[in-house]
Amino acid sequence: MPPHPPTTVPTVPPEPGGSGGDYSKVIRHNGDFTWQGVPLEAYKATTEAWCGITRRELSGKRGETQCFHVRYFEIAPGGFSTLEEHDHEHVVIPLRGRGEVQFGCSIYRVGFGDVVYIAAGDPHQFRNAGDAAEPFGFLCMVNAERDAPRPVAGAIACTICE
Amino acid sequence: MPPHPPTTVPTVPPEPGGSGGDYSKVIRHNGDFTWQGVPLEAYKATTEAWCGITRRELSGKRGETQCFHVRYFEIAPGGFSTLEEHDHEHVVIPLRGRGEVQFGCSIYRVGFGDVVYIAAGDPHQFRNAGDAAEPFGFLCMVNAERDAPRPVAGAIACTICE
Repeated sequence: MPPHPPTTVPTVPPEPGGSGGDYSKVIRHNGDFTWQGVPLEAYKATTEAWCGITRRELSGKRGETQCFHVRYFEIAPGGFSTLEEHDHEHVVIPLRGRGEVQFGCSIYRVGFGDVVYIAAGDPHQFRNAGDAAEPFGFLCMVNAERDAPRPVAGAIACTICE
Repeated sequence: MPPHPPTTVPTVPPEPGGSGGDYSKVIRHNGDFTWQGVPLEAYKATTEAWCGITRRELSGKRGETQCFHVRYFEIAPGGFSTLEEHDHEHVVIPLRGRGEVQFGCSIYRVGFGDVVYIAAGDPHQFRNAGDAAEPFGFLCMVNAERDAPRPVAGAIACTICE
């Protein structure tokens, strides 16, 4: 084993700005799907197309320099994301509760540890069940440089299957 | 709520090659930190510098086109990764057990949901405790295009602190 015994170290980086900056750091999970120094953020401007979603930016938006962003989203019982499409990919890994993802006309129920890949251009939506006991929470990784999502009308032909 | 009720759909994509290809897909977690269609892979050529590590490529190496790779590593009790440095960043999120991460001369004990960012160029190592009851498992996200790691001698001056 390496020579360094476990030691107690501060959980908050000493640099100015808390968790913001391009230096090695540990962002502590509080045990309840909140993180030290990571604020709750608005998902996007409210419309009828989405409901009950919160977002936390875990890495990539506060000075880190990798080519991707890591976010944590939660969808409350009865909530859903916009049915949308875009030219960048999604990689989603659920951590909390269960939910469903639709891409094209396929619907998958997903839970802890499943790996969802949404290919570029595929219309998709994430939802929690109306009678769910807890939020549906998931990591969502995306390219840092990406296009804006475009809402998709509900009655389109499926661009994946047709 | 959207008009699509939950339905049962195949968990394995219908395309040839199983989970390989640039199409939307769900890679099922089997509930034990293994995934359908995702093989166990060798970490890298065995040396005295690392011990007890397994790797699974979850997204980015089988036809997906995002600019990053998502991998799942496990470090067995008593195991550790190479003390190394490289010019790309790491984003690590533990999912299983507990372990410790060292960057420079700082050591952090980490567990489920903590977000570890290793800045480019910082020497670092991941370890499990010798008396741990279970593997230390974590997601590790990296840029798809990245340089090779360079081993670091154990007795260097800390490039972060000094």
